Amino acid sequence: MRADPALILGISELNADYARCLDDGALEAWPGFFSDPCLYSITTRENYALRRPVGIIYADSVDMLTDRVLSLRRANVYERQRYRHLLGMPFIRSRDGGQIASETPFAVYRIMRDGRTDLFVTGCYMDRLRESPSAEYSLSERIVVCDSEIFDTLVAIPL
Amino acid sequence: MRADPALILGISELNADYARCLDDGALEAWPGFFSDPCLYSITTRENYALRRPVGIIYADSVDMLTDRVLSLRRANVYERQRYRHLLGMPFIRSRDGGQIASETPFAVYRIMRDGRTDLFVTGCYMDRLRESPSAEYSLSERIVVCDSEIFDTLVAIPL
Amino acid sequence: MRADPALILGISELNADYARCLDDGALEAWPGFFSDPCLYSITTRENYALRRPVGIIYADSVDMLTDRVLSLRRANVYERQRYRHLLGMPFIRSRDGGQIASETPFAVYRIMRDGRTDLFVTGCYMDRLRESPSAEYSLSERIVVCDSEIFDTLVAIPL
Repeated sequence: MRADPALILGISELNADYARCLDDGALEAWPGFFSDPCLYSITTRENYALRRPVGIIYADSVDMLTDRVLSLRRANVYERQRYRHLLGMPFIRSRDGGQIASETPFAVYRIMRDGRTDLFVTGCYMDRLRESPSAEYSLSERIVVCDSEIFDTLVAIPL
Repeated sequence: MRADPALILGISELNADYARCLDDGALEAWPGFFSDPCLYSITTRENYALRRPVGIIYADSVDMLTDRVLSLRRANVYERQRYRHLLGMPFIRSRDGGQIASETPFAVYRIMRDGRTDLFVTGCYMDRLRESPSAEYSLSERIVVCDSEIFDTLVAIPL
Repeated sequence: MRADPALILGISELNADYARCLDDGALEAWPGFFSDPCLYSITTRENYALRRPVGIIYADSVDMLTDRVLSLRRANVYERQRYRHLLGMPFIRSRDGGQIASETPFAVYRIMRDGRTDLFVTGCYMDRLRESPSAEYSLSERIVVCDSEIFDTLVAIPL
Protein backbone atom coordinates (compact mmCIF):
# COMPACT_ATOMS: atom_id res chain seq x y z
CA MET A 1 0.00 0.00 0.00
CA ARG A 2 3.03 2.33 -0.09
CA ALA A 3 2.65 5.17 -2.56
CA ASP A 4 5.20 6.30 -5.11
CA PRO A 5 7.47 8.96 -3.46
CA ALA A 6 7.61 11.01 -6.66
CA LEU A 7 3.80 11.06 -6.77
CA ILE A 8 3.43 12.20 -3.16
CA LEU A 9 5.97 14.96 -3.67
CA GLY A 10 4.47 16.02 -6.99
CA ILE A 11 1.02 16.47 -5.46
CA SER A 12 2.48 18.11 -2.38
CA GLU A 13 4.24 20.56 -4.67
CA LEU A 14 1.03 21.37 -6.53
CA ASN A 15 -0.70 21.88 -3.18
CA ALA A 16 2.04 24.18 -1.89
CA ASP A 17 1.86 26.25 -5.06
CA TYR A 18 -1.96 26.38 -4.90
CA ALA A 19 -1.91 27.60 -1.28
CA ARG A 20 0.76 30.15 -2.07
CA CYS A 21 -1.30 31.48 -4.97
CA LEU A 22 -4.36 32.04 -2.75
CA ASP A 23 -2.40 33.38 0.22
CA ASP A 24 -0.50 35.85 -1.94
CA GLY A 25 -3.79 37.01 -3.43
CA ALA A 26 -2.63 35.96 -6.90
CA LEU A 27 -6.17 34.90 -7.71
CA GLU A 28 -5.82 35.17 -11.47
CA ALA A 29 -3.42 32.22 -11.38
CA TRP A 30 -5.84 30.01 -9.47
CA PRO A 31 -7.87 28.60 -12.40
CA GLY A 32 -4.57 27.45 -13.92
CA PHE A 33 -4.34 24.64 -11.36
CA PHE A 34 -7.37 22.93 -12.90
CA SER A 35 -7.87 20.91 -16.04
CA ASP A 36 -10.85 21.72 -18.25
CA PRO A 37 -13.58 20.59 -17.71
CA CYS A 38 -13.16 20.28 -13.96
CA LEU A 39 -15.11 20.19 -10.75
CA TYR A 40 -14.48 22.64 -7.95
CA SER A 41 -16.84 22.63 -5.04
CA ILE A 42 -16.89 23.76 -1.42
CA THR A 43 -19.12 21.71 0.81
CA THR A 44 -19.42 20.51 4.38
CA ARG A 45 -18.46 17.18 5.86
CA GLU A 46 -22.10 16.42 6.52
CA ASN A 47 -23.26 17.21 2.98
CA TYR A 48 -20.35 15.30 1.54
CA ALA A 49 -21.14 12.24 3.64
CA LEU A 50 -24.77 12.37 2.51
CA ARG A 51 -23.58 12.67 -1.11
CA ARG A 52 -25.53 15.87 -1.64
CA PRO A 53 -24.12 16.93 -4.97
CA VAL A 54 -23.98 20.73 -4.92
CA GLY A 55 -21.92 22.55 -2.34
CA ILE A 56 -21.62 26.18 -1.31
CA ILE A 57 -19.52 26.94 -4.35
CA TYR A 58 -19.71 24.94 -7.52
CA ALA A 59 -17.81 25.32 -10.80
CA ASP A 60 -17.31 22.82 -13.58
CA SER A 61 -15.06 24.66 -16.00
CA VAL A 62 -12.02 26.89 -15.99
CA ASP A 63 -14.26 29.67 -17.35
CA MET A 64 -16.49 29.44 -14.29
CA LEU A 65 -13.44 29.64 -12.05
CA THR A 66 -12.22 32.68 -13.94
CA ASP A 67 -15.63 34.32 -13.59
CA ARG A 68 -15.45 33.78 -9.86
CA VAL A 69 -12.09 35.50 -9.70
CA LEU A 70 -13.56 38.49 -11.52
CA SER A 71 -16.42 38.67 -9.00
CA LEU A 72 -14.01 38.51 -6.12
CA ARG A 73 -11.96 41.35 -7.55
CA ARG A 74 -15.06 43.46 -8.02
CA ALA A 75 -16.12 42.75 -4.43
CA ASN A 76 -12.63 43.68 -3.15
CA VAL A 77 -12.66 40.70 -0.85
CA TYR A 78 -8.90 40.39 -0.87
CA GLU A 79 -8.48 43.99 0.18
CA ARG A 80 -10.27 43.32 3.44
CA GLN A 81 -8.76 40.02 4.51
CA ARG A 82 -5.97 37.63 3.70
CA TYR A 83 -5.58 33.91 4.19
CA ARG A 84 -2.93 31.48 5.28
CA HIS A 85 -3.24 27.82 4.35
CA LEU A 86 -1.43 25.13 6.27
CA LEU A 87 -1.66 21.79 4.48
CA GLY A 88 -0.84 18.27 5.53
CA MET A 89 0.79 15.78 3.21
CA PRO A 90 -1.47 14.24 0.54
CA PHE A 91 -2.74 10.76 1.17
CA ILE A 92 -2.92 8.81 -2.11
CA ARG A 93 -6.14 6.81 -2.28
CA SER A 94 -5.68 5.34 -5.73
CA ARG A 95 -3.74 5.67 -8.95
CA ASP A 96 -4.99 4.34 -12.21
CA GLY A 97 -2.75 5.31 -15.09
CA GLY A 98 -2.64 9.09 -15.10
CA GLN A 99 -5.69 9.41 -12.80
CA ILE A 100 -4.99 9.88 -9.11
CA ALA A 101 -7.34 10.20 -6.15
CA SER A 102 -5.88 11.87 -3.08
CA GLU A 103 -6.88 13.60 0.15
CA THR A 104 -5.10 16.51 1.79
CA PRO A 105 -6.10 17.97 5.17
CA PHE A 106 -5.95 21.73 5.63
CA ALA A 107 -6.34 24.55 8.12
CA VAL A 108 -7.01 28.05 6.82
CA TYR A 109 -6.38 31.13 8.94
CA ARG A 110 -7.87 34.51 8.18
CA ILE A 111 -6.03 37.75 8.79
CA MET A 112 -8.27 40.81 8.95
CA ARG A 113 -7.21 44.28 7.93
CA ASP A 114 -6.75 45.28 11.59
CA GLY A 115 -4.36 42.40 12.19
CA ARG A 116 -6.65 40.00 14.03
CA THR A 117 -5.85 36.44 12.99
CA ASP A 118 -8.17 33.55 13.60
CA LEU A 119 -8.72 30.01 12.51
CA PHE A 120 -11.14 30.29 9.61
CA VAL A 121 -11.88 26.70 8.74
CA THR A 122 -10.38 23.22 8.77
CA GLY A 123 -11.17 20.41 6.40
CA CYS A 124 -9.90 18.13 3.70
CA TYR A 125 -9.38 18.43 -0.05
CA MET A 126 -10.90 15.42 -1.80
CA ASP A 127 -9.05 15.51 -5.10
CA ARG A 128 -8.83 13.85 -8.46
CA LEU A 129 -5.70 14.72 -10.36
CA ARG A 130 -4.44 14.16 -13.83
CA GLU A 131 -0.80 13.39 -14.43
CA SER A 132 0.66 14.41 -17.75
CA PRO A 133 3.36 12.34 -19.48
CA SER A 134 5.89 14.91 -18.22
CA ALA A 135 4.69 14.34 -14.64
CA GLU A 136 2.86 17.63 -14.34
CA TYR A 137 -0.29 17.49 -12.25
CA SER A 138 -3.59 19.31 -12.65
CA LEU A 139 -6.79 19.12 -10.65
CA SER A 140 -9.68 17.54 -12.50
CA GLU A 141 -11.67 17.65 -9.26
CA ARG A 142 -11.19 19.42 -5.94
CA ILE A 143 -14.00 19.05 -3.46
CA VAL A 144 -13.22 21.20 -0.46
CA VAL A 145 -14.86 19.38 2.43
CA CYS A 146 -15.07 21.79 5.38
CA ASP A 147 -15.33 20.40 8.88
CA SER A 148 -18.00 22.89 9.82
CA GLU A 149 -20.36 25.29 8.14
CA ILE A 150 -19.05 28.76 7.69
CA PHE A 151 -21.47 31.53 7.17
CA ASP A 152 -20.24 34.82 5.92
CA THR A 153 -17.51 35.27 3.40
CA LEU A 154 -17.01 31.64 2.57
CA VAL A 155 -19.58 31.98 -0.16
CA ALA A 156 -17.16 34.08 -2.12
CA ILE A 157 -13.66 32.90 -1.35
CA PRO A 158 -11.72 30.01 -2.84
CA LEU A 159 -10.14 27.62 -0.39
CA MET B 1 22.98 13.73 9.16
CA ARG B 2 20.63 13.76 6.17
CA ALA B 3 17.89 11.17 6.43
CA ASP B 4 16.85 8.71 3.74
CA PRO B 5 14.12 10.35 1.58
CA ALA B 6 12.20 7.07 1.29
CA LEU B 7 12.18 6.76 5.08
CA ILE B 8 10.89 10.30 5.63
CA LEU B 9 8.15 9.80 3.08
CA GLY B 10 7.25 6.37 4.41
CA ILE B 11 6.74 7.69 7.94
CA SER B 12 4.97 10.77 6.64
CA GLU B 13 2.60 8.46 4.76
CA LEU B 14 1.89 6.40 7.89
CA ASN B 15 1.23 9.63 9.77
CA ALA B 16 -1.13 10.95 7.12
CA ASP B 17 -3.04 7.69 7.13
CA TYR B 18 -3.17 7.65 10.96
CA ALA B 19 -4.55 11.21 11.10
CA ARG B 20 -7.09 10.43 8.39
CA CYS B 21 -8.27 7.39 10.32
CA LEU B 22 -8.92 9.42 13.48
CA ASP B 23 -10.39 12.42 11.68
CA ASP B 24 -12.77 10.25 9.68
CA GLY B 25 -13.85 8.55 12.90
CA ALA B 26 -12.65 5.18 11.56
CA LEU B 27 -11.51 4.25 15.04
CA GLU B 28 -11.63 0.51 14.51
CA ALA B 29 -8.69 0.84 12.10
CA TRP B 30 -6.57 2.74 14.63
CA PRO B 31 -5.01 -0.22 16.51
CA GLY B 32 -3.82 -1.53 13.13
CA PHE B 33 -1.13 1.16 13.02
CA PHE B 34 0.67 -0.43 15.96
CA SER B 35 2.84 -3.50 16.29
CA ASP B 36 2.14 -5.88 19.16
CA PRO B 37 3.27 -5.42 21.92
CA CYS B 38 3.40 -1.65 21.69
CA LEU B 39 3.33 1.46 23.80
CA TYR B 40 0.74 4.16 23.30
CA SER B 41 0.64 6.94 25.81
CA ILE B 42 -0.65 10.50 26.04
CA THR B 43 1.30 12.71 28.38
CA THR B 44 2.34 16.32 28.86
CA ARG B 45 5.59 17.99 27.97
CA GLU B 46 6.34 18.50 31.64
CA ASN B 47 5.71 14.88 32.62
CA TYR B 48 7.68 13.68 29.64
CA ALA B 49 10.65 15.88 30.53
CA LEU B 50 10.57 14.54 34.10
CA ARG B 51 10.41 11.00 32.73
CA ARG B 52 7.27 10.22 34.67
CA PRO B 53 6.34 6.93 33.07
CA VAL B 54 2.55 6.83 32.93
CA GLY B 55 0.59 9.39 31.00
CA ILE B 56 -3.09 10.26 30.78
CA ILE B 57 -3.71 7.29 28.53
CA TYR B 58 -1.54 4.21 28.57
CA ALA B 59 -1.78 1.02 26.50
CA ASP B 60 0.86 -1.60 25.86
CA SER B 61 -0.88 -4.00 23.50
CA VAL B 62 -3.12 -3.93 20.48
CA ASP B 63 -5.82 -5.53 22.65
CA MET B 64 -5.74 -2.58 25.02
CA LEU B 65 -6.04 -0.19 22.08
CA THR B 66 -9.00 -2.18 20.78
CA ASP B 67 -10.65 -2.06 24.21
CA ARG B 68 -10.28 1.69 24.21
CA VAL B 69 -12.01 1.93 20.86
CA LEU B 70 -14.92 -0.09 22.25
CA SER B 71 -15.21 2.26 25.24
CA LEU B 72 -15.19 5.28 22.96
CA ARG B 73 -17.96 3.81 20.85
CA ARG B 74 -20.04 3.09 23.94
CA ALA B 75 -19.49 6.65 25.16
CA ASN B 76 -20.50 8.06 21.75
CA VAL B 77 -17.63 10.49 21.89
CA TYR B 78 -17.32 10.65 18.13
CA GLU B 79 -20.98 11.56 17.76
CA ARG B 80 -20.44 14.76 19.70
CA GLN B 81 -17.20 16.04 18.25
CA ARG B 82 -14.78 15.50 15.40
CA TYR B 83 -11.11 16.20 15.04
CA ARG B 84 -8.74 17.53 12.45
CA HIS B 85 -5.04 16.75 12.72
CA LEU B 86 -2.42 18.88 11.00
CA LEU B 87 0.98 17.24 11.13
CA GLY B 88 4.45 18.47 10.36
CA MET B 89 7.05 16.35 8.63
CA PRO B 90 8.70 13.66 10.73
CA PHE B 91 12.18 14.37 12.03
CA ILE B 92 14.25 11.19 12.03
CA ARG B 93 16.27 10.93 15.24
CA SER B 94 17.90 7.58 14.59
CA ARG B 95 17.70 4.47 12.49
CA ASP B 96 19.19 1.20 13.56
CA GLY B 97 18.34 -1.59 11.17
CA GLY B 98 14.55 -1.77 11.10
CA GLN B 99 14.16 0.37 14.26
CA ILE B 100 13.51 4.05 13.74
CA ALA B 101 13.07 6.87 16.25
CA SER B 102 11.27 9.93 14.95
CA GLU B 103 9.39 13.02 16.11
CA THR B 104 6.40 14.62 14.42
CA PRO B 105 4.80 17.87 15.59
CA PHE B 106 1.00 18.16 15.48
CA ALA B 107 -1.91 20.51 15.99
CA VAL B 108 -5.35 19.02 16.60
CA TYR B 109 -8.52 21.02 16.08
CA ARG B 110 -11.87 20.03 17.54
CA ILE B 111 -15.15 20.58 15.74
CA MET B 112 -18.19 20.49 17.99
CA ARG B 113 -21.64 19.35 16.90
CA ASP B 114 -22.81 22.97 16.62
CA GLY B 115 -19.95 23.83 14.26
CA ARG B 116 -17.64 25.66 16.65
CA THR B 117 -14.03 24.84 15.78
CA ASP B 118 -11.16 25.46 18.12
CA LEU B 119 -7.56 24.51 18.60
CA PHE B 120 -7.71 21.49 20.87
CA VAL B 121 -4.08 20.76 21.55
CA THR B 122 -0.60 21.02 20.05
CA GLY B 123 2.32 18.72 20.72
CA CYS B 124 4.72 16.20 19.32
CA TYR B 125 4.58 12.49 18.62
CA MET B 126 7.68 10.78 20.03
CA ASP B 127 7.72 7.58 18.02
CA ARG B 128 9.54 4.33 17.63
CA LEU B 129 8.74 2.55 14.41
CA ARG B 130 9.46 -0.83 12.97
CA GLU B 131 10.24 -1.21 9.30
CA SER B 132 9.36 -4.50 7.68
CA PRO B 133 11.50 -6.00 4.88
CA SER B 134 8.84 -4.74 2.44
CA ALA B 135 9.26 -1.19 3.81
CA GLU B 136 5.97 -1.14 5.66
CA TYR B 137 6.04 0.81 8.91
CA SER B 138 4.26 0.17 12.18
CA LEU B 139 4.37 2.02 15.49
CA SER B 140 6.04 0.09 18.28
CA GLU B 141 5.80 3.22 20.43
CA ARG B 142 3.87 6.48 20.12
CA ILE B 143 4.13 8.82 23.06
CA VAL B 144 1.85 11.77 22.43
CA VAL B 145 3.54 14.65 24.21
CA CYS B 146 1.00 17.46 24.58
CA ASP B 147 2.24 21.01 24.99
CA SER B 148 -0.31 21.71 27.71
CA GLU B 149 -2.63 19.81 29.97
CA ILE B 150 -6.06 19.24 28.63
CA PHE B 151 -8.81 18.51 31.03
CA ASP B 152 -12.04 17.15 29.78
CA THR B 153 -12.38 14.75 26.92
CA LEU B 154 -8.71 14.12 26.41
CA VAL B 155 -8.97 11.24 28.84
CA ALA B 156 -10.97 9.34 26.29
CA ILE B 157 -9.81 10.33 22.82
CA PRO B 158 -6.86 9.08 20.82
CA LEU B 159 -4.57 11.70 19.37
CA MET C 1 8.64 23.47 -13.27
CA ARG C 2 8.79 20.38 -11.05
CA ALA C 3 11.41 20.64 -8.33
CA ASP C 4 13.98 18.02 -7.44
CA PRO C 5 12.45 15.66 -4.82
CA ALA C 6 15.75 15.41 -2.93
CA LEU C 7 15.89 19.20 -2.72
CA ILE C 8 12.34 19.54 -1.38
CA LEU C 9 12.97 16.88 1.23
CA GLY C 10 16.35 18.31 2.19
CA ILE C 11 14.87 21.75 2.87
CA SER C 12 11.87 20.22 4.58
CA GLU C 13 14.27 18.35 6.85
CA LEU C 14 16.19 21.51 7.71
CA ASN C 15 12.88 23.22 8.46
CA ALA C 16 11.69 20.39 10.70
CA ASP C 17 14.96 20.46 12.61
CA TYR C 18 14.82 24.26 12.94
CA ALA C 19 11.27 24.18 14.31
CA ARG C 20 12.18 21.39 16.72
CA CYS C 21 15.14 23.39 17.99
CA LEU C 22 12.98 26.43 18.80
CA ASP C 23 10.06 24.40 20.18
CA ASP C 24 12.33 22.39 22.45
CA GLY C 25 13.88 25.61 23.70
CA ALA C 26 17.30 24.50 22.40
CA LEU C 27 18.07 28.08 21.46
CA GLU C 28 21.82 27.72 21.56
CA ALA C 29 21.60 25.45 18.49
CA TRP C 30 19.58 27.97 16.50
CA PRO C 31 22.45 30.07 15.04
CA GLY C 32 23.89 26.82 13.66
CA PHE C 33 21.20 26.72 10.98
CA PHE C 34 22.66 29.81 9.32
CA SER C 35 25.70 30.39 7.18
CA ASP C 36 27.96 33.33 8.02
CA PRO C 37 27.38 36.09 7.04
CA CYS C 38 23.60 35.71 6.89
CA LEU C 39 20.42 37.68 7.06
CA TYR C 40 17.74 36.94 9.63
CA SER C 41 14.86 39.30 9.86
CA ILE C 42 11.28 39.31 11.18
CA THR C 43 8.97 41.63 9.35
CA THR C 44 5.33 42.00 8.34
CA ARG C 45 3.70 41.21 5.05
CA GLU C 46 3.01 44.89 4.51
CA ASN C 47 6.58 46.00 5.17
CA TYR C 48 7.92 43.17 3.05
CA ALA C 49 5.66 44.11 0.15
CA LEU C 50 6.81 47.73 0.39
CA ARG C 51 10.44 46.52 0.46
CA ARG C 52 11.13 48.31 3.70
CA PRO C 53 14.52 46.86 4.52
CA VAL C 54 14.63 46.53 8.30
CA GLY C 55 12.17 44.37 10.16
CA ILE C 56 11.32 43.92 13.82
CA ILE C 57 14.40 41.80 14.34
CA TYR C 58 17.46 42.07 12.18
CA ALA C 59 20.72 40.14 12.31
CA ASP C 60 23.38 39.75 9.64
CA SER C 61 25.89 37.42 11.26
CA VAL C 62 25.96 34.28 13.34
CA ASP C 63 27.48 36.39 16.16
CA MET C 64 24.42 38.63 16.19
CA LEU C 65 22.16 35.57 16.35
CA THR C 66 24.21 34.22 19.24
CA ASP C 67 23.95 37.55 21.05
CA ARG C 68 20.20 37.40 20.69
CA VAL C 69 20.11 33.96 22.25
CA LEU C 70 22.09 35.28 25.22
CA SER C 71 19.61 38.15 25.66
CA LEU C 72 16.70 35.74 25.53
CA ARG C 73 18.26 33.56 28.19
CA ARG C 74 18.85 36.57 30.43
CA ALA C 75 15.24 37.67 29.95
CA ASN C 76 14.00 34.16 30.78
CA VAL C 77 11.53 34.33 27.92
CA TYR C 78 11.55 30.58 27.42
CA GLU C 79 10.66 29.99 31.06
CA ARG C 80 7.37 31.81 30.63
CA GLN C 81 6.15 30.46 27.33
CA ARG C 82 6.81 27.78 24.75
CA TYR C 83 6.12 27.56 21.08
CA ARG C 84 4.91 25.03 18.57
CA HIS C 85 5.66 25.51 14.89
CA LEU C 86 3.60 23.83 12.21
CA LEU C 87 5.22 24.21 8.81
CA GLY C 88 4.01 23.54 5.31
CA MET C 89 6.19 22.04 2.63
CA PRO C 90 8.76 24.36 1.07
CA PHE C 91 7.99 25.79 -2.32
CA ILE C 92 11.16 26.04 -4.42
CA ARG C 93 11.25 29.36 -6.26
CA SER C 94 14.62 28.94 -7.93
CA ARG C 95 17.83 26.99 -7.85
CA ASP C 96 21.02 28.27 -9.30
CA GLY C 97 23.93 25.98 -8.58
CA GLY C 98 24.14 25.72 -4.80
CA GLN C 99 21.87 28.76 -4.25
CA ILE C 100 18.22 28.05 -3.61
CA ALA C 101 15.28 30.39 -3.03
CA SER C 102 12.29 28.87 -1.28
CA GLU C 103 9.16 29.79 0.66
CA THR C 104 7.65 27.87 3.56
CA PRO C 105 4.36 28.82 5.23
CA PHE C 106 4.09 28.51 9.00
CA ALA C 107 1.74 28.76 11.95
CA VAL C 108 3.21 29.26 15.40
CA TYR C 109 1.25 28.50 18.56
CA ARG C 110 2.18 29.84 21.96
CA ILE C 111 1.73 27.86 25.15
CA MET C 112 1.73 29.95 28.31
CA ARG C 113 2.92 28.73 31.68
CA ASP C 114 -0.68 28.25 32.85
CA GLY C 115 -1.46 26.00 29.88
CA ARG C 116 -3.38 28.42 27.69
CA THR C 117 -2.53 27.76 24.04
CA ASP C 118 -3.28 30.21 21.30
CA LEU C 119 -2.36 30.90 17.73
CA PHE C 120 0.57 33.29 17.98
CA VAL C 121 1.25 34.18 14.38
CA THR C 122 1.05 32.86 10.84
CA GLY C 123 3.29 33.77 7.96
CA CYS C 124 5.86 32.61 5.49
CA TYR C 125 9.60 32.07 5.58
CA MET C 126 11.24 33.71 2.56
CA ASP C 127 14.51 31.85 2.40
CA ARG C 128 17.79 31.70 0.57
CA LEU C 129 19.71 28.53 1.19
CA ARG C 130 23.14 27.27 0.40
CA GLU C 131 23.68 23.68 -0.57
CA SER C 132 27.05 22.15 0.22
CA PRO C 133 28.63 19.54 -2.09
CA SER C 134 27.48 16.91 0.44
CA ALA C 135 23.89 18.14 0.11
CA GLU C 136 23.79 19.83 3.50
CA TYR C 137 21.70 23.00 3.61
CA SER C 138 22.21 26.19 5.56
CA LEU C 139 20.23 29.41 5.61
CA SER C 140 22.01 32.36 4.07
CA GLU C 141 18.80 34.37 4.44
CA ARG C 142 15.56 33.80 6.36
CA ILE C 143 13.09 36.65 6.24
CA VAL C 144 10.17 35.77 8.50
CA VAL C 145 7.21 37.50 6.90
CA CYS C 146 4.38 37.60 9.46
CA ASP C 147 0.82 37.91 8.25
CA SER C 148 0.00 40.46 10.92
CA GLU C 149 1.80 42.72 13.36
CA ILE C 150 2.40 41.25 16.73
CA PHE C 151 3.01 43.54 19.60
CA ASP C 152 4.48 42.19 22.74
CA THR C 153 7.03 39.44 22.94
CA LEU C 154 7.68 39.09 19.26
CA VAL C 155 10.42 41.64 19.58
CA ALA C 156 12.48 39.10 21.46
CA ILE C 157 11.65 35.66 20.16
CA PRO C 158 12.98 33.86 17.11
CA LEU C 159 10.41 32.40 14.74
